[in-house]
Amino acid sequence: MITVTLAEIIARLGGEVRGKDSTRISRIATLENAGQETIAFLSNPKYQKQLSQTRASAVIVAPDFAGQSPVPCIITPQPYLYFARLAQWLNPPPRPAPGLHPTASSESVVPSSVSVGPGARVGRGVKLGTSVMIGPGCVIGDGAEIGDDCILHAACTFYAGTRIGRRAIVHSGAVIGADGFGFAREQDGSWVKIPQTGGVWIGDDVEIGASTCIDRGAIEDTVIEDGVKLDNQIQIAHNVHIGAHTAIAGCTGIAGSAIIGKRCTIAGACNIIGHIEIADDVNILVASIITKSISRPGTYAGAVPSQPYADWLQNYSHLRHLDGMADKIRRLEKRLTELEKSK
Amino acid sequence: MITVTLAEIIARLGGEVRGKDSTRISRIATLENAGQETIAFLSNPKYQKQLSQTRASAVIVAPDFAGQSPVPCIITPQPYLYFARLAQWLNPPPRPAPGLHPTASSESVVPSSVSVGPGARVGRGVKLGTSVMIGPGCVIGDGAEIGDDCILHAACTFYAGTRIGRRAIVHSGAVIGADGFGFAREQDGSWVKIPQTGGVWIGDDVEIGASTCIDRGAIEDTVIEDGVKLDNQIQIAHNVHIGAHTAIAGCTGIAGSAIIGKRCTIAGACNIIGHIEIADDVNILVASIITKSISRPGTYAGAVPSQPYADWLQNYSHLRHLDGMADKIRRLEKRLTELEKSK
Amino acid sequence: MITVTLAEIIARLGGEVRGKDSTRISRIATLENAGQETIAFLSNPKYQKQLSQTRASAVIVAPDFAGQSPVPCIITPQPYLYFARLAQWLNPPPRPAPGLHPTASSESVVPSSVSVGPGARVGRGVKLGTSVMIGPGCVIGDGAEIGDDCILHAACTFYAGTRIGRRAIVHSGAVIGADGFGFAREQDGSWVKIPQTGGVWIGDDVEIGASTCIDRGAIEDTVIEDGVKLDNQIQIAHNVHIGAHTAIAGCTGIAGSAIIGKRCTIAGACNIIGHIEIADDVNILVASIITKSISRPGTYAGAVPSQPYADWLQNYSHLRHLDGMADKIRRLEKRLTELEKSK
Repeated sequence: MITVTLAEIIARLGGEVRGKDSTRISRIATLENAGQETIAFLSNPKYQKQLSQTRASAVIVAPDFAGQSPVPCIITPQPYLYFARLAQWLNPPPRPAPGLHPTASSESVVPSSVSVGPGARVGRGVKLGTSVMIGPGCVIGDGAEIGDDCILHAACTFYAGTRIGRRAIVHSGAVIGADGFGFAREQDGSWVKIPQTGGVWIGDDVEIGASTCIDRGAIEDTVIEDGVKLDNQIQIAHNVHIGAHTAIAGCTGIAGSAIIGKRCTIAGACNIIGHIEIADDVNILVASIITKSISRPGTYAGAVPSQPYADWLQNYSHLRHLDGMADKIRRLEKRLTELEKSK
Repeated sequence: MITVTLAEIIARLGGEVRGKDSTRISRIATLENAGQETIAFLSNPKYQKQLSQTRASAVIVAPDFAGQSPVPCIITPQPYLYFARLAQWLNPPPRPAPGLHPTASSESVVPSSVSVGPGARVGRGVKLGTSVMIGPGCVIGDGAEIGDDCILHAACTFYAGTRIGRRAIVHSGAVIGADGFGFAREQDGSWVKIPQTGGVWIGDDVEIGASTCIDRGAIEDTVIEDGVKLDNQIQIAHNVHIGAHTAIAGCTGIAGSAIIGKRCTIAGACNIIGHIEIADDVNILVASIITKSISRPGTYAGAVPSQPYADWLQNYSHLRHLDGMADKIRRLEKRLTELEKSK
Repeated sequence: MITVTLAEIIARLGGEVRGKDSTRISRIATLENAGQETIAFLSNPKYQKQLSQTRASAVIVAPDFAGQSPVPCIITPQPYLYFARLAQWLNPPPRPAPGLHPTASSESVVPSSVSVGPGARVGRGVKLGTSVMIGPGCVIGDGAEIGDDCILHAACTFYAGTRIGRRAIVHSGAVIGADGFGFAREQDGSWVKIPQTGGVWIGDDVEIGASTCIDRGAIEDTVIEDGVKLDNQIQIAHNVHIGAHTAIAGCTGIAGSAIIGKRCTIAGACNIIGHIEIADDVNILVASIITKSISRPGTYAGAVPSQPYADWLQNYSHLRHLDGMADKIRRLEKRLTELEKSK
């Protein structure tokens, strides 16, 4: 456990202390459930009331709220970002002792700074950067490349030839480089597999959630640029290209050859069809189906509301008859116009 | 294989036998495909016709249908529940011989009643209850706690510090305790990870389906109360709280900090957004997007119907113009009112 | 790497060469990024322009486009299908040396042609066909059957008693035979598990994507017929029956006891509810919710369009009031009719 004083914190992360700067901090906490040696933050004004009652040792607040803090505080224009940096400092990622566990196997050179966990398997011709952590049960296929300081949690799978840059965090059950879904159809309806000969290229500082799948390309690579953040259970099909610093929430699917811009945010449970293009700086809200390219930055939505069952039954049954409804309106307009004229 | 007579069954599970109570039963079956030494059940009156033709050795029926059974029967007011209990008796879960498989590894004490399968890995400071079964390839992170009589099928992953109560059944590919999806944003659009320092707390008698993910909390715990049943490929984000005996079907996603009540049923492919609250005893039907809190028990729905392609094209194109349609109606009403007045 | 001439290709796969038939080919490529010894194809007329500029050594084209090829070409009525066959020839699946890896374990006979990768586990009474490849970390439960020439990539899980035919390709994280989601409810709202005593039966030539789950049946088997192709993250519930040569794209869920016909195509992110029946030769487009049986072949759709946020807010708020809208139209019609009569 790391313990620091407020003075040490601002020396490293900036900001200004109001109150006793020798206050000691060893853990982060919420305003509501804070205790000894904890620091909390106020970012959303909605939680302002909790500030006055907090038992944290100190809080991180924007200038406007500093006056309301009952405890010492660090003042910064962006409390949440400041909190993130401090939380990283106080919670360094686990670093198991380097070395190959006796139950692991490797057919490649494992640098001395690398740890390979129990039951993990590293194939032939794999390039491992320095200080890589390969969790228990991970499988790294032949010829794969894992950059410096990557953390692969338990049970990640990298297929042969896949590449990921530095400082990635990959969560359990992620599958990188499985075959894309590509088949040609025979006249009898059966399918002939298109071997998926492309790879997967992933940049630096990417996080990949649990059970997320990134398929290898059909001929060329699937590409995930620097700084992309992917939540759990995301499906990225072959030859998708995701621009730098785009963040995608859980359960979203992106179909083949879709191109997603930089700095986009895509909420959970969205689906983006194949072969379309999304511009930079696009925000897509929850459960939206994107069936056309989006050429302009902005916020897009498509979720349909849920209702009490009886209301849903009454309202949504009309969805099958919207065209008839539009038609009725047209006919009413025509009849009314005629009536008005005839007056 | 266990073989029991109808007399033995009612001695243990209650109910009443009509017909020969020495009839022997060793397997459960459907009414339609039953054979020797099988018992089937009639719960849904829709299958009444199958009762008269069944070749089961015996059937479980409600009082109203006992007269129609061509074979000995057990009469009970709740045939399906009775069937569940009998099926459990006849099909005890597999119990591999206790002990640590030679290819497994453990850095914690493994009680003598516990089995740890091939290639499984138990970290440091793990607390394992009695008679726990850890399947092949499972990974139990440092400091995790697994209660008595838990069954972990092959390839489950528990991250460090996660806790699960007694009698859980966890299916393959489930990931418990991966990092929640939390980032603060820099002004250039890049992301700073919020270390996820909370844990996962899971009660007793919980079942977790294949490839289901339950993320650890950001600061405090993600909580799954007693008796919750989760199907496959469910995504539970950080700091979600699910009340006791709630059952959730496959492919449903629950976003961060959502609070779900007790005894709810949530069908497949639903999505519940973050920071909302669902009351106790709420039933949500298939493919519903829940974007607002639900404060009253009852049934809610939100699925949109599918149609033949041509109909869909005609009807759903109007969805982009519903407001225009509403406007046309308002104008029609106004014009008509004026016309009526002028008469 | 395999190198062949155009003459050798047509000798095996048919078609006709225009240009130098001694042209050597060792890799497939896209028209756009082709290089030395590559062959590309033109299937979609949209890419016609790329044909004239390609640097491929040869191309596969339909008769109509042969005249426009700047390089030698193979002429065939179905370029994509031809390409698939040639790509398979040039890219045979990896075949690791047979044998049981020292870190693997097996309690069954492993035929001499079979390879079992690092950390993999084969249970008791498992029947393995010839030339089966079991990837690192796979778990094959007791009594399972894996047909000749199956390729199981890393970390697949087959539960006890599941069966798959010949030439299957199964991707990482797939879970075959986990328990279906079946419970009877107590009056207090808690759940009693129905032991899932059915199995999974999968035919020949099936491909199963990464993290796809196929649950075992409740009493009888879940059935996947020959030639079915399943993409990633698909959920197939207990007792589903999928007809031969049906292809299903990623993130689709199929609920319990649904029956899907032969030669269907189901796009990504669809959901099909339980106990319904889909006819043969049905095509279901992206993100459709199928809540009723489909008895006729054809194309069906149900996706709702996304829009810029402000438009969505204006339009989709009316979804909760469609019935009111329909009612207003009815009343307008009535009033107008009265007015017309009174004239």
